[in-house]
Amino acid sequence: MKITLVGVGLIGGSIALKLNKNGFATHIFGVDQSEKHLEEAKNLGIIDEISTLENAISNSELIILAIPVDATTKLLPQILDLISSDQTIFDVGSTKSGIVRSIENHPNRNRFVAFHPMWGTENSGPKSAIEESFTGRAAVICDRNNSAKDAVELVENIVEILGMHVIEMSSEDHDIHTAYISHISHITSYALANTVLEKEREEDTIFQLASSGFSSTVRLAKSHPEMWVPIFKQNKENVLDVLNEHITQLRKFKAALEKENYELLEELIRNANKIRGILK
Amino acid sequence: MKITLVGVGLIGGSIALKLNKNGFATHIFGVDQSEKHLEEAKNLGIIDEISTLENAISNSELIILAIPVDATTKLLPQILDLISSDQTIFDVGSTKSGIVRSIENHPNRNRFVAFHPMWGTENSGPKSAIEESFTGRAAVICDRNNSAKDAVELVENIVEILGMHVIEMSSEDHDIHTAYISHISHITSYALANTVLEKEREEDTIFQLASSGFSSTVRLAKSHPEMWVPIFKQNKENVLDVLNEHITQLRKFKAALEKENYELLEELIRNANKIRGILK
Repeated sequence: MKITLVGVGLIGGSIALKLNKNGFATHIFGVDQSEKHLEEAKNLGIIDEISTLENAISNSELIILAIPVDATTKLLPQILDLISSDQTIFDVGSTKSGIVRSIENHPNRNRFVAFHPMWGTENSGPKSAIEESFTGRAAVICDRNNSAKDAVELVENIVEILGMHVIEMSSEDHDIHTAYISHISHITSYALANTVLEKEREEDTIFQLASSGFSSTVRLAKSHPEMWVPIFKQNKENVLDVLNEHITQLRKFKAALEKENYELLEELIRNANKIRGILK
Repeated sequence: MKITLVGVGLIGGSIALKLNKNGFATHIFGVDQSEKHLEEAKNLGIIDEISTLENAISNSELIILAIPVDATTKLLPQILDLISSDQTIFDVGSTKSGIVRSIENHPNRNRFVAFHPMWGTENSGPKSAIEESFTGRAAVICDRNNSAKDAVELVENIVEILGMHVIEMSSEDHDIHTAYISHISHITSYALANTVLEKEREEDTIFQLASSGFSSTVRLAKSHPEMWVPIFKQNKENVLDVLNEHITQLRKFKAALEKENYELLEELIRNANKIRGILK
């Protein structure tokens, strides 16, 4: 299948590598704002050809949008204007409601599948792409009934190639769940990094002492604002809900410590330990 | 060398496995409150013999205290009462000021080395012990001048066997730095787990959607209160300082979102990204 890949970075690149290896992709046109990333993607075997958006779309059966969610909201209606009923497009964005709202009345709406593969790292760019990234992870398809049957089947086919399993939900539910499962983790990591950078002036000590625990909680703080500001913006209400609850939970730890109420502290920790039964 | 290991869990067990393999340990006496853990430790090759504390100490040149910090504060003075000037004892606790205060006027104070190998996981017990855990990590020795030269040299010898590098500092500095580098990470993880458990009632969705990012920030929330309540208790002032700063930093994210000030949000994220230059 001939494919247009808009955005040749971490997620788009990882999908392309797998579709190339599997043989599903016969030719991948790469479209990106960054000349450097396009060259890198070509050298890494992520894409076969650097192309303009128009040329790529007119020669592809499938278009993959793997760019920040604000850019998707802008570009998706323009791409739907250009495609016909034998072409399919899906995105990979971490928010969904804003994206589907931007095309809800478009005549080609049903050629689009709102898709979110649940994997990512704190890195970006084609050099960070990993062929086997998605194996065993969840792939969310939102608002399935608003997409054409053959379009959803094509995406399900790709989900299988990636070694993922499909979960279906509405865009609204998706944005609530990802606020809990992903977006709040990024805010706590950023805030934790800023806490340490603000108060711990001895950078060398951070570097030398940082245990695996710290590195693990602060890893996501390396993630770039180009991707994350648009996500927080599009999912503002849900993220604020979760952030308020998180601050409330932190205040309980603060109160337990201040009042030297170590029974409460133990209770808070025992409750948190329940995550053991839920997460692998 | 004949060694007493008090506490045959994650940290003590991991040290013992390495000292056994290397040949430094000729016989390890295991002392623990848990019969089950003692049996497991013997079966796993962590210890050679299950023993009473008194018997173990009277037959050992080195005593390793690898138990929660409140138990260390209680037991350390009693062990110092029992040992002579050709025996050495070190702990592995995550706080130091309270521990060294508990023995500051003890006649055998200089046989004790305040030690903290910077490694751990969210797991506990002998079955979690890993022989090569410590390689490449920092090993903190506190208040070196309060310990006898030969005692410090013995610990430095073990540090080398573990593949670690020594960092020296005062107990007070240690407790400030670990509040930033380790203790606050645990509180944010616990609070994050409680946030999700409080609001996200669909446990199955957490399990299915949880991305690697969430798992990584919430991993420490699996850590047991038996170990962590005493750490927070002993390092209360420092942990509260850092926790207050962390809540302040989270409030900045909240304010930026509420006011839709996305320039500020970007600035906060760019500042957090600086952690990239400090952490590997």
